Amino acid sequence: MASKDYIQQNKDKFIEELLELLRIPSVSADPKFKEDVLKAASYVKESLAQAGADKVEICPTPGYPVVYGEKIIDTALPTVLVYGHYDVQPADPYELWDSAPFEPVIKKTELHPEGAIFARGSADDKGQFYMHVKAFEAMMAEGELTCNVKFMIEGEEEVGSDNLANFIKENKEKLKSDVVLISDTSMLSLETPSVTVGLRGLAYMQVEVTGPNRDLHSGTYGGAVANPINILCKIISQLQDEDRKITVPGFYDKVEELSAEYRKKLNEAPFDLQDYKRKLDIKEVEGEAGFTTLERTGIRPTLDVNGIWGGYIGEGAKTVLPSKAYAKISMRLVPHQDHHEISELFQKHFESLAPDSVKVKVTPHHGGKPAVVPTSSVGYKAAEAAVQEVFGKKAIPTREGGSVPITSLFQEELKLDPILLGFGLDTDAIHSPNEHYGIKNYLLGIETIAAFFKNFRKLSEK
Amino acid sequence: MASKDYIQQNKDKFIEELLELLRIPSVSADPKFKEDVLKAASYVKESLAQAGADKVEICPTPGYPVVYGEKIIDTALPTVLVYGHYDVQPADPYELWDSAPFEPVIKKTELHPEGAIFARGSADDKGQFYMHVKAFEAMMAEGELTCNVKFMIEGEEEVGSDNLANFIKENKEKLKSDVVLISDTSMLSLETPSVTVGLRGLAYMQVEVTGPNRDLHSGTYGGAVANPINILCKIISQLQDEDRKITVPGFYDKVEELSAEYRKKLNEAPFDLQDYKRKLDIKEVEGEAGFTTLERTGIRPTLDVNGIWGGYIGEGAKTVLPSKAYAKISMRLVPHQDHHEISELFQKHFESLAPDSVKVKVTPHHGGKPAVVPTSSVGYKAAEAAVQEVFGKKAIPTREGGSVPITSLFQEELKLDPILLGFGLDTDAIHSPNEHYGIKNYLLGIETIAAFFKNFRKLSEK
Repeated sequence: MASKDYIQQNKDKFIEELLELLRIPSVSADPKFKEDVLKAASYVKESLAQAGADKVEICPTPGYPVVYGEKIIDTALPTVLVYGHYDVQPADPYELWDSAPFEPVIKKTELHPEGAIFARGSADDKGQFYMHVKAFEAMMAEGELTCNVKFMIEGEEEVGSDNLANFIKENKEKLKSDVVLISDTSMLSLETPSVTVGLRGLAYMQVEVTGPNRDLHSGTYGGAVANPINILCKIISQLQDEDRKITVPGFYDKVEELSAEYRKKLNEAPFDLQDYKRKLDIKEVEGEAGFTTLERTGIRPTLDVNGIWGGYIGEGAKTVLPSKAYAKISMRLVPHQDHHEISELFQKHFESLAPDSVKVKVTPHHGGKPAVVPTSSVGYKAAEAAVQEVFGKKAIPTREGGSVPITSLFQEELKLDPILLGFGLDTDAIHSPNEHYGIKNYLLGIETIAAFFKNFRKLSEK
Repeated sequence: MASKDYIQQNKDKFIEELLELLRIPSVSADPKFKEDVLKAASYVKESLAQAGADKVEICPTPGYPVVYGEKIIDTALPTVLVYGHYDVQPADPYELWDSAPFEPVIKKTELHPEGAIFARGSADDKGQFYMHVKAFEAMMAEGELTCNVKFMIEGEEEVGSDNLANFIKENKEKLKSDVVLISDTSMLSLETPSVTVGLRGLAYMQVEVTGPNRDLHSGTYGGAVANPINILCKIISQLQDEDRKITVPGFYDKVEELSAEYRKKLNEAPFDLQDYKRKLDIKEVEGEAGFTTLERTGIRPTLDVNGIWGGYIGEGAKTVLPSKAYAKISMRLVPHQDHHEISELFQKHFESLAPDSVKVKVTPHHGGKPAVVPTSSVGYKAAEAAVQEVFGKKAIPTREGGSVPITSLFQEELKLDPILLGFGLDTDAIHSPNEHYGIKNYLLGIETIAAFFKNFRKLSEK
């Protein structure tokens, strides 16, 4: 393919453009970055236009806008809808970054001997969606665009994509396509390429426990008045039993018991537990009894406290019995679990665990449905063929622990199967300090996306 | 007494001077207030000199200095050592204050129809130790100082008085006295005056739980890698059993079982549970099974989490599985419990509760021994007589929940019984937002202190 040469010849430019995008701190969760999020949207719009897209526009929503662009070469040909997001996770704690999160640097690492870009958003998702813009540019430049393409790049993925459902509902005709292509997941490794066929859903809750109506002196009131931190800890400890099963009544009702055969196949994926523990510097893994690590992160629902705070957290000591304590708690969901239903069950259960000595408030933050992608679809087969061409190996179908809440929306509203062709690695530290994305992953990703278009056209014609 | 008239005539000046002292943010726990802590020491020195003290000096220690001053009228007469502290607790959370913590304002409240001073340190302990300076001024002005007096006002009480033991050991001759008088506690109410005869000790610990070596994405690793917040909550919930007994092995070994008679007497103190709950806006109290609220806060040891933090605590949602979680945990101790021993027992227990999937670090912050004051001493009887004179009622001897770690030091190093003649109220919100101290408490306190000197001289001569 000529576009492969184009990618090789333009790789420095492709990297430089991504670095430019990464310098914009488009943190959607924090209102203080509002101008930057909008700046990132403009950058995406410009990039699409320069690559050759038509009808490029910044579509307003009640929140951050969706950037749209398309290239219709022939309405009779199949159409690929590309989804991605230009917003990023908050970068705190800043002090744990080795370099500033919004001043990208390229460094070599053990896993990335050819270098990786260190910056917030490098893997999630700027580095990944931008591969599509560059693959499009290469195909346009070399006259190798074989399908119509539509881009929908949003700015609220990291805060729950609250306005995307309406946007899709209101623009069904405009978004009409034959497949959705998303790069927002990871593969096992460059040596063991994989394509994600399942994603967990998410129910994210914030809880608040109130004891006395003001902070008290623990010497005067301690032992006689319920301490909201102690109570919060106790409730949290009761959310899972000794086997790490989640105790919310009804939580597992819709969880599918997967066949022994399926589980056997899943556990055949390359995985080295000793190496996993060594890299995380932990002595033991911990999770739901009766399941392996790959099962725990792929096919089982989980519960994690993502944040907790209350009382005096400054330097030194303060003998306070605080009025309030808070936590952010999220649950990863598996197919058939509905995040609205789970949020409600969680709320009831949490409230039932609270003693009369405190008041509790449970607020659902955001959520997303789990997704399963059929491996029999043309889209999946095109992804498989593209990986085979570029990596020289058959892709392993994997289920991933993370959530891309938007996937189920495509299935329901547009009746499209999302193809989750991601090129990140689990070690990329997304949502963490020192997030990075391999240069080789970036360039091979662009190549694979171009190959996907070719194969999708070919397989659609059969 | 002429000094009583002097106090009445000078009350506006006495209040104004205290407000001036309260404007200095002498927070010893936070290094950013270092200059202010030293400024407060200078203010104390000037005040003592102006009131008529001799040999006034700022005595350096490896930490914040001790301010000393004395008036020896006749070496044959008894000597009163006054102890207090010019440092204050941190004022956070600032947003919960109705007025700025270091810009004192006087406001009337239900309990203080004659007004109360709202400011950090107003009750703990600036407003209380300053009463002694003003009582001294009044007695000097009216020629009514009947005992020798020595002042020792320190600047590290809120951070554990780390350097005071050495200061006392090195200055035994200088500090030689017949009694120590301390106003750093509260009384039941102005209508039901009381004198504290027991104080709980303190063991304050910081704990750190480490899971993986970096923050992880909860979608990718959640459910398979131990979450340090979940683990911390579980360990904390195991520190107390269903009866709210502390589970640290050996914790209760040295706790005295008080006689039914003593407990009966203790429970005769005026206390209205409904009113207590109403003022705190709680539906139920909560504490160790088998004990009343007065017993729980007075004679029983307790455990409280004073602060907790970990993971993402900003706005919105971040699906992080954090590397670390922290808590500050303190235990109030009763007579015979040694805080060093308890700290060690706690550390061992906490470590034993941690699963292999995490690492834990337990660091003792500071502590103090519990104290009991004999009611048979001349000092106690002088306090009782002074209260009778000023309040027209017999003082109720009470045990207080808070800790003044320094008291046991006086008993051990100087062989002196500390007389805990405090004038605060439990509702003063010390260590909390909106700390305040009643104007009436302040003025009656000054009067009572002057009456103490008269009675101590008289009773010492018998």
